[in-house]
Amino acid sequence: MTFANVGTLGALPGRRDEIVTILTRLNADLAEAGCLLYEVGVNEDAPDTVFVAELWESAEAHRASLQLESVRSAIAEAMPLLSGEMGGERFEVVGSPLRA
Amino acid sequence: MTFANVGTLGALPGRRDEIVTILTRLNADLAEAGCLLYEVGVNEDAPDTVFVAELWESAEAHRASLQLESVRSAIAEAMPLLSGEMGGERFEVVGSPLRA
Repeated sequence: MTFANVGTLGALPGRRDEIVTILTRLNADLAEAGCLLYEVGVNEDAPDTVFVAELWESAEAHRASLQLESVRSAIAEAMPLLSGEMGGERFEVVGSPLRA
Repeated sequence: MTFANVGTLGALPGRRDEIVTILTRLNADLAEAGCLLYEVGVNEDAPDTVFVAELWESAEAHRASLQLESVRSAIAEAMPLLSGEMGGERFEVVGSPLRA
């Protein structure tokens, strides 16, 4: 069942865009690991926050992706730029009004 | 610029699945209005909450969609089932590691 992970990552002041650069770097491993969508964004009303919206083939595929070397390396690179504040929601997709 | 709206809708006790049914009913107006993705889901750890993750061609397209007759009618139908608790985030998409 499609799994969604949507959330926020707090950035240290002024470091948001560096985190965005790390998270948006092309990573072919993700699709192979079952990632269906991975959108990264910003909101100027919250200038020290990075937003992510992810869809995965399953919760297990998402969990397993965190062990990929390329993902571990990106997390290690972003870690010193993060404030530690994190938020978000995880859910199982039931359907969409865009499809029957 | 692609706009994301992700959030939660609180349901009155036991009414969550009725809201899900309303929100996932096929609506051809949405794609025409610039809706790129509209996933509706649940999480059994939060049994009175409906989760949504939407992508739109622009924030303006999202705003305008709220005036569509089919959307107003769905909102009116869901309203009596909602607790009034709402949460979420809106952001502008900057990129994705799934595409160059």
